[in-house]
Amino acid sequence: MASEGKIIEHPKKAFGWAARDTTGVLSPFHFSRRETGEKDVAFKVLYCGICHTDLHMMHNEWGNSIYPLVPGHELVGVVTEVGSKVEKFKVGDKVGVGYMVDSCRSCENCDDNVENYCPQLTVTCGAKYRDGTITYGGYSDSMVADEHFVILIPDNLPLDVAGPLLCAGVTVYSPLRHFGIDKPGMNIGVVGLGGLGHMAVKFAKAFGSNVTVISTSPSKEKEAIEHLGADSFLISRDPDQMQAAKGTLHGIIDTVSASHPVLPLIGLLKTNGKLVMVGGVAKPLELPASSLLGES
Amino acid sequence: MASEGKIIEHPKKAFGWAARDTTGVLSPFHFSRRETGEKDVAFKVLYCGICHTDLHMMHNEWGNSIYPLVPGHELVGVVTEVGSKVEKFKVGDKVGVGYMVDSCRSCENCDDNVENYCPQLTVTCGAKYRDGTITYGGYSDSMVADEHFVILIPDNLPLDVAGPLLCAGVTVYSPLRHFGIDKPGMNIGVVGLGGLGHMAVKFAKAFGSNVTVISTSPSKEKEAIEHLGADSFLISRDPDQMQAAKGTLHGIIDTVSASHPVLPLIGLLKTNGKLVMVGGVAKPLELPASSLLGES
Repeated sequence: MASEGKIIEHPKKAFGWAARDTTGVLSPFHFSRRETGEKDVAFKVLYCGICHTDLHMMHNEWGNSIYPLVPGHELVGVVTEVGSKVEKFKVGDKVGVGYMVDSCRSCENCDDNVENYCPQLTVTCGAKYRDGTITYGGYSDSMVADEHFVILIPDNLPLDVAGPLLCAGVTVYSPLRHFGIDKPGMNIGVVGLGGLGHMAVKFAKAFGSNVTVISTSPSKEKEAIEHLGADSFLISRDPDQMQAAKGTLHGIIDTVSASHPVLPLIGLLKTNGKLVMVGGVAKPLELPASSLLGES
Repeated sequence: MASEGKIIEHPKKAFGWAARDTTGVLSPFHFSRRETGEKDVAFKVLYCGICHTDLHMMHNEWGNSIYPLVPGHELVGVVTEVGSKVEKFKVGDKVGVGYMVDSCRSCENCDDNVENYCPQLTVTCGAKYRDGTITYGGYSDSMVADEHFVILIPDNLPLDVAGPLLCAGVTVYSPLRHFGIDKPGMNIGVVGLGGLGHMAVKFAKAFGSNVTVISTSPSKEKEAIEHLGADSFLISRDPDQMQAAKGTLHGIIDTVSASHPVLPLIGLLKTNGKLVMVGGVAKPLELPASSLLGES
Protein backbone atom coordinates (compact mmCIF):
# COMPACT_ATOMS: atom_id res chain seq x y z
CA MET A 1 0.00 0.00 0.00
CA ALA A 2 1.34 3.41 -0.91
CA SER A 3 0.77 6.45 1.31
CA GLU A 4 -1.01 9.60 0.30
CA GLY A 5 0.08 13.19 0.76
CA LYS A 6 -1.39 16.67 0.59
CA ILE A 7 -0.74 18.46 -2.70
CA ILE A 8 -0.51 22.25 -2.43
CA GLU A 9 -0.05 24.50 -5.42
CA HIS A 10 2.91 26.71 -4.67
CA PRO A 11 3.71 29.72 -6.82
CA LYS A 12 7.12 28.37 -7.94
CA LYS A 13 6.84 26.07 -10.91
CA ALA A 14 9.13 23.09 -11.06
CA PHE A 15 9.76 20.24 -13.43
CA GLY A 16 11.01 16.76 -12.70
CA TRP A 17 10.74 13.05 -13.40
CA ALA A 18 8.29 11.08 -11.33
CA ALA A 19 7.27 7.48 -10.74
CA ARG A 20 3.49 7.20 -10.85
CA ASP A 21 3.29 3.58 -9.67
CA THR A 22 5.48 0.59 -8.79
CA THR A 23 6.57 -0.18 -12.37
CA GLY A 24 9.82 1.72 -12.04
CA VAL A 25 9.03 3.95 -15.01
CA LEU A 26 9.77 7.67 -14.65
CA SER A 27 7.81 10.21 -16.68
CA PRO A 28 7.81 14.02 -16.94
CA PHE A 29 6.11 15.73 -13.99
CA HIS A 30 5.15 19.35 -13.51
CA PHE A 31 4.85 20.39 -9.87
CA SER A 32 5.59 23.35 -7.60
CA ARG A 33 8.10 24.26 -4.90
CA ARG A 34 7.38 26.54 -1.95
CA GLU A 35 8.44 30.19 -1.92
CA THR A 36 11.92 30.76 -0.53
CA GLY A 37 11.30 31.29 3.21
CA GLU A 38 13.43 33.51 5.37
CA LYS A 39 15.72 30.60 6.36
CA ASP A 40 15.49 28.88 2.96
CA VAL A 41 18.02 28.44 0.19
CA ALA A 42 16.70 27.93 -3.36
CA PHE A 43 18.98 26.43 -5.97
CA LYS A 44 19.03 25.23 -9.56
CA VAL A 45 19.68 21.49 -9.58
CA LEU A 46 22.52 20.63 -11.94
CA TYR A 47 23.34 17.02 -10.97
CA CYS A 48 21.73 14.31 -8.87
CA GLY A 49 23.13 10.93 -7.85
CA ILE A 50 21.15 7.75 -8.42
CA CYS A 51 20.98 5.72 -5.22
CA HIS A 52 19.58 2.23 -4.81
CA THR A 53 17.15 3.73 -2.28
CA ASP A 54 15.57 5.61 -5.17
CA LEU A 55 14.81 2.27 -6.82
CA HIS A 56 13.40 0.81 -3.59
CA MET A 57 11.18 3.87 -3.24
CA MET A 58 10.04 3.88 -6.88
CA HIS A 59 8.97 0.24 -6.53
CA ASN A 60 7.37 0.93 -3.11
CA GLU A 61 9.44 -1.90 -1.67
CA TRP A 62 9.24 -0.46 1.82
CA GLY A 63 5.49 0.13 1.58
CA ASN A 64 5.59 3.85 2.35
CA SER A 65 6.11 5.49 -1.03
CA ILE A 66 3.92 8.45 -2.02
CA TYR A 67 3.11 8.85 -5.73
CA PRO A 68 3.81 10.79 -7.85
CA LEU A 69 7.32 10.20 -6.51
CA VAL A 70 10.22 12.41 -7.61
CA PRO A 71 13.33 10.50 -6.46
CA GLY A 72 16.80 11.88 -5.83
CA HIS A 73 18.53 12.78 -2.58
CA GLU A 74 22.09 13.48 -3.74
CA LEU A 75 21.39 16.73 -5.50
CA VAL A 76 23.79 19.58 -6.18
CA GLY A 77 23.54 22.88 -7.97
CA VAL A 78 23.94 26.64 -7.75
CA VAL A 79 22.08 28.96 -5.37
CA THR A 80 19.50 31.18 -7.08
CA GLU A 81 17.86 32.83 -4.07
CA VAL A 82 18.33 33.04 -0.30
CA GLY A 83 15.88 34.04 2.43
CA SER A 84 16.36 37.20 4.49
CA LYS A 85 17.70 35.32 7.53
CA VAL A 86 20.00 32.91 5.70
CA GLU A 87 23.52 33.21 7.11
CA LYS A 88 25.67 30.60 5.43
CA PHE A 89 24.90 30.97 1.73
CA LYS A 90 24.68 33.55 -1.02
CA VAL A 91 23.44 33.51 -4.61
CA GLY A 92 25.94 31.72 -6.86
CA ASP A 93 27.28 29.33 -4.19
CA LYS A 94 27.68 25.69 -5.11
CA VAL A 95 25.48 23.66 -2.75
CA GLY A 96 23.86 20.30 -2.23
CA VAL A 97 21.15 18.51 -0.28
CA GLY A 98 21.36 14.93 1.00
CA TYR A 99 18.67 12.68 2.41
CA MET A 100 17.26 15.14 4.95
CA VAL A 101 15.32 18.37 4.44
CA ASP A 102 13.78 18.90 7.86
CA SER A 103 13.69 17.74 11.49
CA CYS A 104 12.16 19.06 14.71
CA ARG A 105 15.35 20.93 15.73
CA SER A 106 14.42 20.62 19.40
CA CYS A 107 14.81 16.97 20.45
CA GLU A 108 17.86 15.39 22.05
CA ASN A 109 19.04 13.98 18.72
CA CYS A 110 18.73 17.33 16.95
CA ASP A 111 20.57 18.97 19.84
CA ASP A 112 23.34 16.39 19.40
CA ASN A 113 23.62 17.12 15.67
CA VAL A 114 22.29 13.70 14.72
CA GLU A 115 19.12 14.99 13.09
CA ASN A 116 19.02 11.76 11.11
CA TYR A 117 17.70 10.10 14.28
CA CYS A 118 15.03 12.77 14.93
CA PRO A 119 11.60 11.13 15.24
CA GLN A 120 10.24 13.92 13.02
CA LEU A 121 12.95 13.63 10.39
CA THR A 122 11.69 14.54 6.92
CA VAL A 123 13.53 12.87 4.07
CA THR A 124 14.14 14.54 0.76
CA CYS A 125 11.77 12.66 -1.50
CA GLY A 126 8.60 10.63 -1.30
CA ALA A 127 7.87 11.73 2.27
CA LYS A 128 5.83 14.45 3.93
CA TYR A 129 6.92 17.73 5.45
CA ARG A 130 5.56 18.35 8.92
CA ASP A 131 2.74 20.41 7.32
CA GLY A 132 1.65 17.31 5.37
CA THR A 133 2.89 18.41 1.95
CA ILE A 134 4.97 16.03 -0.13
CA THR A 135 8.73 16.18 -0.54
CA TYR A 136 9.99 16.01 -4.11
CA GLY A 137 13.61 15.05 -4.68
CA GLY A 138 16.46 15.94 -6.97
CA TYR A 139 15.36 14.38 -10.25
CA SER A 140 14.10 17.87 -10.92
CA ASP A 141 15.24 21.29 -12.03
CA SER A 142 15.07 23.20 -8.75
CA MET A 143 15.13 22.78 -4.99
CA VAL A 144 14.34 24.81 -1.89
CA ALA A 145 15.38 23.79 1.61
CA ASP A 146 16.13 25.23 5.04
CA GLU A 147 19.77 26.27 5.10
CA HIS A 148 20.38 23.92 8.04
CA PHE A 149 20.04 21.01 5.62
CA VAL A 150 22.00 22.58 2.76
CA ILE A 151 25.70 21.80 2.34
CA LEU A 152 28.28 24.09 0.77
CA ILE A 153 30.28 22.38 -1.97
CA PRO A 154 33.91 23.60 -2.05
CA ASP A 155 35.02 25.26 -5.25
CA ASN A 156 37.69 22.62 -5.91
CA LEU A 157 35.16 19.78 -5.92
CA PRO A 158 33.49 19.32 -9.33
CA LEU A 159 29.71 19.29 -8.98
CA ASP A 160 29.20 16.17 -11.08
CA VAL A 161 31.07 14.02 -8.54
CA ALA A 162 29.90 15.84 -5.40
CA GLY A 163 26.32 14.53 -5.42
CA PRO A 164 26.94 10.93 -4.28
CA LEU A 165 28.95 12.16 -1.29
CA LEU A 166 25.70 13.44 0.19
CA CYS A 167 24.24 9.98 0.81
CA ALA A 168 26.61 7.17 -0.23
CA GLY A 169 29.53 9.26 1.03
CA VAL A 170 28.23 10.11 4.48
CA THR A 171 26.92 6.57 4.92
CA VAL A 172 30.48 5.22 4.92
CA TYR A 173 32.36 8.31 6.17
CA SER A 174 30.22 8.61 9.28
CA PRO A 175 30.75 5.07 10.67
CA LEU A 176 34.48 5.18 9.93
CA ARG A 177 34.65 8.33 12.05
CA HIS A 178 32.06 7.43 14.67
CA PHE A 179 33.61 4.06 15.51
CA GLY A 180 37.19 5.32 15.40
CA ILE A 181 38.25 3.07 12.53
CA ASP A 182 39.77 6.03 10.76
CA LYS A 183 43.35 5.99 12.02
CA PRO A 184 46.53 5.80 9.91
CA GLY A 185 47.93 2.28 9.79
CA MET A 186 44.70 0.55 10.69
CA ASN A 187 43.64 -2.45 8.62
CA ILE A 188 40.18 -1.76 7.24
CA GLY A 189 37.98 -4.12 5.25
CA VAL A 190 35.33 -2.96 2.80
CA VAL A 191 32.72 -5.53 1.82
CA GLY A 192 31.12 -4.95 -1.56
CA LEU A 193 32.39 -2.58 -4.21
CA GLY A 194 29.27 -0.73 -5.35
CA GLY A 195 28.21 2.86 -4.77
CA LEU A 196 29.01 2.75 -1.05
CA GLY A 197 31.99 0.44 -1.20
CA HIS A 198 34.07 2.45 -3.61
CA MET A 199 33.61 5.53 -1.44
CA ALA A 200 34.55 3.58 1.68
CA VAL A 201 37.82 2.56 -0.01
CA LYS A 202 38.60 6.14 -0.96
CA PHE A 203 37.85 7.52 2.52
CA ALA A 204 39.77 4.78 4.32
CA LYS A 205 42.76 5.31 2.06
CA ALA A 206 42.53 9.06 2.67
CA PHE A 207 42.65 8.34 6.43
CA GLY A 208 45.89 6.41 5.89
CA SER A 209 44.47 2.94 6.48
CA ASN A 210 45.49 -0.29 4.78
CA VAL A 211 42.39 -1.24 2.85
CA THR A 212 41.25 -4.74 1.94
CA VAL A 213 38.31 -5.06 -0.42
CA ILE A 214 36.24 -8.17 0.33
CA SER A 215 34.05 -9.38 -2.49
CA THR A 216 32.44 -12.46 -3.98
CA SER A 217 33.48 -11.28 -7.46
CA PRO A 218 37.11 -11.87 -8.56
CA SER A 219 36.35 -9.53 -11.47
CA LYS A 220 36.36 -6.58 -9.08
CA GLU A 221 40.01 -6.97 -8.10
CA LYS A 222 41.38 -4.77 -10.87
CA GLU A 223 38.97 -1.96 -10.04
CA ALA A 224 39.71 -2.26 -6.32
CA ILE A 225 43.48 -2.24 -6.58
CA GLU A 226 44.24 -0.28 -9.73
CA HIS A 227 41.43 2.25 -9.91
CA LEU A 228 40.60 2.82 -6.25
CA GLY A 229 43.97 2.19 -4.63
CA ALA A 230 42.99 -0.62 -2.26
CA ASP A 231 45.96 -2.50 -0.81
CA SER A 232 44.57 -6.00 -1.11
CA PHE A 233 41.64 -8.00 -2.33
CA LEU A 234 39.95 -10.92 -0.65
CA ILE A 235 37.50 -13.36 -2.23
CA SER A 236 34.96 -14.03 0.50
CA ARG A 237 34.06 -17.40 -1.05
CA ASP A 238 37.65 -18.67 -0.85
CA PRO A 239 38.04 -20.44 2.52
CA ASP A 240 41.85 -20.43 2.30
CA GLN A 241 42.02 -16.68 1.72
CA MET A 242 39.50 -16.06 4.50
CA GLN A 243 41.39 -18.32 6.90
CA ALA A 244 44.67 -16.57 6.15
CA ALA A 245 43.09 -13.19 6.89
CA LYS A 246 41.50 -14.21 10.20
CA GLY A 247 41.92 -11.75 13.04
CA THR A 248 43.69 -9.11 10.95
CA LEU A 249 41.21 -6.25 10.59
CA HIS A 250 40.54 -3.36 12.97
CA GLY A 251 37.26 -2.60 11.26
CA ILE A 252 34.98 -3.62 8.43
CA ILE A 253 32.44 -1.51 6.56
CA ASP A 254 29.95 -3.97 5.09
CA THR A 255 28.02 -2.30 2.28
CA VAL A 256 26.16 -5.33 0.95
CA SER A 257 22.40 -4.90 0.95
CA ALA A 258 21.50 -8.49 0.03
CA SER A 259 21.30 -11.16 2.72
CA HIS A 260 24.77 -12.64 3.24
CA PRO A 261 26.83 -14.56 5.84
CA VAL A 262 28.08 -12.36 8.65
CA LEU A 263 30.04 -14.88 10.75
CA PRO A 264 32.98 -15.17 8.31
CA LEU A 265 33.34 -11.38 8.39
CA ILE A 266 33.38 -11.32 12.19
CA GLY A 267 36.19 -13.89 11.99
CA LEU A 268 38.33 -11.41 10.08
CA LEU A 269 38.31 -8.93 12.97
CA LYS A 270 40.96 -8.42 15.59
CA THR A 271 39.91 -8.39 19.22
CA ASN A 272 37.48 -5.50 19.74
CA GLY A 273 37.36 -4.97 15.99
CA LYS A 274 34.23 -3.37 14.60
CA LEU A 275 31.89 -4.67 11.93
CA VAL A 276 29.58 -1.94 10.69
CA MET A 277 26.74 -2.97 8.41
CA VAL A 278 25.41 -0.09 6.35
CA GLY A 279 23.50 -2.00 3.67
CA GLY A 280 19.74 -1.97 4.13
CA VAL A 281 19.35 -5.74 4.38
CA ALA A 282 15.62 -6.41 4.31
CA LYS A 283 15.73 -9.84 5.99
CA PRO A 284 16.73 -10.36 9.64
CA LEU A 285 20.34 -11.37 10.16
CA GLU A 286 21.21 -14.48 12.03
CA LEU A 287 24.09 -13.62 14.31
CA PRO A 288 26.14 -15.88 16.54
CA ALA A 289 25.37 -16.33 20.18
CA SER A 290 27.75 -14.50 22.48
CA SER A 291 30.86 -16.24 23.69
CA LEU A 292 30.26 -19.00 26.18
CA LEU A 293 33.27 -18.15 28.31
CA GLY A 294 32.78 -15.80 31.17
CA GLU A 295 29.13 -16.54 31.75
CA SER A 296 28.15 -16.79 35.37
CA MET B 1 32.30 -36.43 23.62
CA ALA B 2 34.55 -35.44 26.49
CA SER B 3 38.23 -34.63 25.97
CA GLU B 4 41.13 -36.42 27.58
CA GLY B 5 44.12 -34.94 29.34
CA LYS B 6 47.53 -36.00 30.56
CA ILE B 7 47.66 -36.88 34.27
CA ILE B 8 51.01 -36.22 35.94
CA GLU B 9 51.70 -37.09 39.55
CA HIS B 10 53.06 -33.92 41.15
CA PRO B 11 54.61 -34.00 44.58
CA LYS B 12 52.01 -31.69 46.16
CA LYS B 13 48.95 -33.57 47.28
CA ALA B 14 45.59 -31.87 46.88
CA PHE B 15 42.00 -32.72 47.63
CA GLY B 16 38.86 -31.57 45.90
CA TRP B 17 35.43 -32.44 44.60
CA ALA B 18 35.22 -33.77 41.06
CA ALA B 19 32.60 -34.68 38.49
CA ARG B 20 33.44 -38.04 36.97
CA ASP B 21 30.80 -37.95 34.24
CA THR B 22 27.85 -35.87 32.97
CA THR B 23 25.48 -36.72 35.84
CA GLY B 24 26.30 -33.57 37.76
CA VAL B 25 27.36 -35.50 40.85
CA LEU B 26 30.54 -34.36 42.63
CA SER B 27 32.56 -36.86 44.68
CA PRO B 28 35.79 -36.64 46.69
CA PHE B 29 38.92 -36.55 44.51
CA HIS B 30 42.57 -36.84 45.48
CA PHE B 31 44.96 -35.29 42.98
CA SER B 32 48.19 -33.28 42.91
CA ARG B 33 49.27 -29.72 42.18
CA ARG B 34 52.61 -28.72 40.65
CA GLU B 35 55.50 -27.49 42.80
CA THR B 36 55.48 -23.74 43.32
CA GLY B 37 57.55 -22.44 40.38
CA GLU B 38 59.70 -19.33 40.57
CA LYS B 39 56.85 -17.12 39.30
CA ASP B 40 54.11 -19.10 41.07
CA VAL B 41 51.92 -18.27 44.02
CA ALA B 42 50.51 -21.18 46.07
CA PHE B 43 47.51 -20.56 48.28
CA LYS B 44 45.10 -22.35 50.57
CA VAL B 45 41.61 -22.10 49.06
CA LEU B 46 39.10 -20.82 51.61
CA TYR B 47 36.09 -19.96 49.46
CA CYS B 48 34.99 -20.58 45.90
CA GLY B 49 32.01 -19.15 44.02
CA ILE B 50 29.59 -21.41 42.19
CA CYS B 51 29.08 -20.20 38.63
CA HIS B 52 26.61 -21.51 36.09
CA THR B 53 29.59 -22.29 33.86
CA ASP B 54 30.62 -24.90 36.44
CA LEU B 55 27.30 -26.63 35.83
CA HIS B 56 27.67 -26.43 32.04
CA MET B 57 31.14 -27.96 32.37
CA MET B 58 30.10 -30.71 34.80
CA HIS B 59 27.36 -31.77 32.38
CA ASN B 60 29.76 -31.46 29.39
CA GLU B 61 27.22 -29.20 27.71
CA TRP B 62 29.87 -27.58 25.56
CA GLY B 63 31.40 -30.91 24.57
CA ASN B 64 34.92 -30.15 25.78
CA SER B 65 34.92 -31.18 29.44
CA ILE B 66 37.78 -33.31 30.77
CA TYR B 67 36.94 -35.76 33.58
CA PRO B 68 37.64 -36.01 36.44
CA LEU B 69 36.58 -32.37 36.46
CA VAL B 70 37.22 -30.18 39.52
CA PRO B 71 35.07 -27.07 38.89
CA GLY B 72 35.49 -23.62 40.42
CA HIS B 73 37.01 -20.46 38.95
CA GLU B 74 36.11 -17.86 41.57
CA LEU B 75 38.48 -19.06 44.26
CA VAL B 76 40.01 -17.05 47.08
CA GLY B 77 42.29 -17.85 49.97
CA VAL B 78 45.55 -17.07 51.72
CA VAL B 79 49.04 -17.35 50.24
CA THR B 80 51.10 -20.24 51.64
CA GLU B 81 54.18 -20.08 49.43
CA VAL B 82 55.65 -17.83 46.73
CA GLY B 83 58.30 -18.57 44.09
CA SER B 84 61.70 -16.88 44.15
CA LYS B 85 60.82 -14.42 41.38
CA VAL B 86 57.34 -13.50 42.58
CA GLU B 87 57.10 -9.73 42.98
CA LYS B 88 53.53 -8.90 43.90
CA PHE B 89 52.67 -11.31 46.70
CA LYS B 90 53.95 -12.61 50.01
CA VAL B 91 52.92 -15.40 52.33
CA GLY B 92 49.74 -14.48 54.21
CA ASP B 93 48.28 -12.22 51.51
CA LYS B 94 44.61 -12.63 50.66
CA VAL B 95 44.39 -13.57 46.97
CA GLY B 96 42.13 -15.02 44.34
CA VAL B 97 42.12 -16.58 40.89
CA GLY B 98 39.43 -16.09 38.26
CA TYR B 99 38.77 -17.96 35.04
CA MET B 100 42.33 -17.76 33.65
CA VAL B 101 45.53 -19.42 34.84
CA ASP B 102 47.76 -19.08 31.80
CA SER B 103 48.16 -17.52 28.35
CA CYS B 104 51.00 -17.19 25.84
CA ARG B 105 52.07 -13.75 27.16
CA SER B 106 53.49 -12.82 23.76
CA CYS B 107 50.58 -12.30 21.34
CA GLU B 108 48.90 -9.01 20.50
CA ASN B 109 46.04 -9.70 22.93
CA CYS B 110 48.40 -10.53 25.80
CA ASP B 111 50.39 -7.38 25.01
CA ASP B 112 47.14 -5.41 25.19
CA ASN B 113 46.27 -6.89 28.61
CA VAL B 114 43.31 -8.80 27.21
CA GLU B 115 44.76 -12.25 27.88
CA ASN B 116 41.19 -13.56 27.87
CA TYR B 117 41.36 -13.32 24.07
CA CYS B 118 44.72 -15.11 23.79
CA PRO B 119 44.42 -18.10 21.43
CA GLN B 120 46.42 -20.11 23.97
CA LEU B 121 44.36 -19.03 26.98
CA THR B 122 44.20 -21.72 29.65
CA VAL B 123 41.11 -21.64 31.81
CA THR B 124 41.11 -22.55 35.46
CA CYS B 125 39.30 -25.86 35.41
CA GLY B 126 38.57 -28.71 33.08
CA ALA B 127 41.09 -27.52 30.50
CA LYS B 128 44.74 -28.27 29.68
CA TYR B 129 47.84 -26.32 30.47
CA ARG B 130 50.12 -25.78 27.50
CA ASP B 131 52.13 -28.84 28.64
CA GLY B 132 49.00 -30.98 28.29
CA THR B 133 48.31 -31.46 31.99
CA ILE B 134 44.82 -30.85 33.30
CA THR B 135 43.65 -27.75 35.15
CA TYR B 136 41.79 -28.37 38.38
CA GLY B 137 39.63 -25.58 39.78
CA GLY B 138 38.70 -24.13 43.11
CA TYR B 139 36.41 -26.80 44.53
CA SER B 140 39.60 -27.93 46.22
CA ASP B 141 41.83 -27.18 49.17
CA SER B 142 44.81 -25.57 47.43
CA MET B 143 45.83 -23.75 44.29
CA VAL B 144 49.03 -22.79 42.51
CA ALA B 145 49.16 -20.28 39.66
CA ASP B 146 51.52 -17.86 37.93
CA GLU B 147 51.37 -14.55 39.79
CA HIS B 148 50.26 -12.81 36.59
CA PHE B 149 46.89 -14.52 37.00
CA VAL B 150 46.59 -14.05 40.76
CA ILE B 151 44.65 -11.09 42.15
CA LEU B 152 45.30 -9.40 45.47
CA ILE B 153 42.15 -9.10 47.60
CA PRO B 154 42.12 -5.88 49.66
CA ASP B 155 42.02 -6.31 53.40
CA ASN B 156 38.67 -4.53 53.72
CA LEU B 157 36.92 -6.98 51.40
CA PRO B 158 35.71 -10.12 53.21
CA LEU B 159 36.94 -13.25 51.46
CA ASP B 160 33.56 -14.96 51.42
CA VAL B 161 32.09 -12.29 49.13
CA ALA B 162 35.23 -11.64 47.07
CA GLY B 163 35.13 -14.87 45.05
CA PRO B 164 32.24 -14.10 42.68
CA LEU B 165 33.86 -10.80 41.70
CA LEU B 166 36.51 -12.81 39.86
CA CYS B 167 34.14 -14.08 37.16
CA ALA B 168 30.60 -12.73 37.58
CA GLY B 169 32.06 -9.41 38.70
CA VAL B 170 34.51 -8.81 35.87
CA THR B 171 31.94 -10.03 33.35
CA VAL B 172 29.73 -7.02 34.08
CA TYR B 173 32.36 -4.55 35.29
CA SER B 174 34.44 -4.89 32.15
CA PRO B 175 31.73 -4.05 29.57
CA LEU B 176 30.45 -1.14 31.66
CA ARG B 177 33.98 0.29 31.55
CA HIS B 178 34.94 -0.80 28.04
CA PHE B 179 31.87 0.68 26.37
CA GLY B 180 31.89 3.86 28.45
CA ILE B 181 28.51 3.23 30.04
CA ASP B 182 29.97 3.95 33.45
CA LYS B 183 29.36 7.69 33.82
CA PRO B 184 27.48 9.42 36.63
CA GLY B 185 23.94 10.34 35.61
CA MET B 186 23.70 7.79 32.82
CA ASN B 187 20.59 5.63 32.61
CA ILE B 188 21.67 2.01 32.68
CA GLY B 189 19.49 -1.07 32.26
CA VAL B 190 20.33 -4.45 33.74
CA VAL B 191 18.46 -7.42 32.27
CA GLY B 192 18.13 -10.40 34.58
CA LEU B 193 18.82 -10.38 38.29
CA GLY B 194 20.92 -13.49 38.87
CA GLY B 195 24.60 -13.84 39.69
CA LEU B 196 25.70 -11.39 37.03
CA GLY B 197 22.74 -9.05 37.21
CA HIS B 198 22.97 -8.20 40.87
CA MET B 199 26.65 -7.33 40.45
CA ALA B 200 25.85 -5.16 37.43
CA VAL B 201 23.35 -3.22 39.54
CA LYS B 202 25.90 -2.69 42.30
CA PHE B 203 28.67 -1.56 39.92
CA ALA B 204 26.39 0.76 37.93
CA LYS B 205 25.11 2.33 41.15
CA ALA B 206 28.71 2.73 42.35
CA PHE B 207 29.49 4.58 39.09
CA GLY B 208 26.64 6.99 39.86
CA SER B 209 24.24 5.75 37.19
CA ASN B 210 20.46 5.58 37.39
CA VAL B 211 19.79 1.87 37.25
CA THR B 212 16.71 0.16 35.87
CA VAL B 213 16.38 -3.58 36.42
CA ILE B 214 14.56 -5.27 33.54
CA SER B 215 13.05 -8.64 34.34
CA THR B 216 10.25 -11.01 33.42
CA SER B 217 9.63 -11.67 37.13
CA PRO B 218 7.64 -9.08 39.13
CA SER B 219 8.77 -10.94 42.24
CA LYS B 220 12.29 -9.56 41.76
CA GLU B 221 11.25 -5.94 42.24
CA LYS B 222 11.72 -5.89 45.99
CA GLU B 223 15.20 -7.37 45.73
CA ALA B 224 16.16 -4.97 42.94
CA ILE B 225 14.96 -1.80 44.63
CA GLU B 226 15.26 -2.48 48.35
CA HIS B 227 18.23 -4.81 48.59
CA LEU B 228 20.38 -3.74 45.65
CA GLY B 229 19.48 -0.07 45.40
CA ALA B 230 18.21 -0.02 41.81
CA ASP B 231 16.25 3.13 40.93
CA SER B 232 13.47 1.49 38.95
CA PHE B 233 12.10 -1.82 37.84
CA LEU B 234 10.68 -2.71 34.44
CA ILE B 235 8.65 -5.81 33.58
CA SER B 236 9.86 -6.77 30.12
CA ARG B 237 6.57 -8.56 29.38
CA ASP B 238 4.50 -5.44 30.03
CA PRO B 239 4.12 -3.62 26.68
CA ASP B 240 2.93 -0.40 28.34
CA GLN B 241 5.95 -0.23 30.64
CA MET B 242 8.30 -1.05 27.78
CA GLN B 243 6.69 1.58 25.54
CA ALA B 244 6.98 4.23 28.25
CA ALA B 245 10.68 3.46 28.64
CA LYS B 246 11.52 3.58 24.92
CA GLY B 247 14.65 5.50 24.02
CA THR B 248 15.63 6.28 27.59
CA LEU B 249 18.73 4.16 28.31
CA HIS B 250 22.37 4.93 27.54
CA GLY B 251 23.34 1.32 27.97
CA ILE B 252 22.03 -2.12 28.84
CA ILE B 253 23.88 -5.07 30.33
CA ASP B 254 21.90 -8.15 29.36
CA THR B 255 22.85 -11.05 31.63
CA VAL B 256 20.22 -13.55 30.51
CA SER B 257 21.70 -16.81 29.24
CA ALA B 258 18.46 -18.30 27.91
CA SER B 259 17.22 -17.42 24.44
CA HIS B 260 15.11 -14.26 24.66
CA PRO B 261 13.82 -11.38 22.50
CA VAL B 262 16.46 -8.73 21.82
CA LEU B 263 14.50 -6.24 19.73
CA PRO B 264 12.44 -4.86 22.66
CA LEU B 265 15.69 -4.19 24.54
CA ILE B 266 17.18 -2.33 21.59
CA GLY B 267 14.04 -0.19 21.59
CA LEU B 268 14.84 0.98 25.12
CA LEU B 269 18.14 2.53 24.02
CA LYS B 270 18.83 6.14 23.22
CA THR B 271 20.56 6.95 19.94
CA ASN B 272 24.00 5.33 19.97
CA GLY B 273 23.05 3.48 23.14
CA LYS B 274 24.84 0.20 23.79
CA LEU B 275 23.34 -3.23 24.39
CA VAL B 276 25.95 -5.62 25.76
CA MET B 277 24.99 -9.28 25.98
CA VAL B 278 27.11 -11.20 28.45
CA GLY B 279 24.96 -14.30 28.91
CA GLY B 280 26.25 -17.37 27.11
CA VAL B 281 23.18 -17.89 24.96
CA ALA B 282 23.65 -21.24 23.25
CA LYS B 283 21.28 -20.61 20.34
CA PRO B 284 21.93 -18.06 17.59
CA LEU B 285 20.19 -14.73 18.09
CA GLU B 286 17.94 -13.32 15.47
CA LEU B 287 18.73 -9.65 15.20
CA PRO B 288 17.02 -7.00 13.14
CA ALA B 289 18.28 -5.95 9.76
CA SER B 290 20.06 -2.60 9.73
CA SER B 291 18.07 0.56 9.18
CA LEU B 292 16.78 1.02 5.69
CA LEU B 293 17.50 4.73 5.57
CA GLY B 294 20.80 5.81 4.19
CA GLU B 295 21.43 2.81 1.97
CA SER B 296 22.90 3.63 -1.39
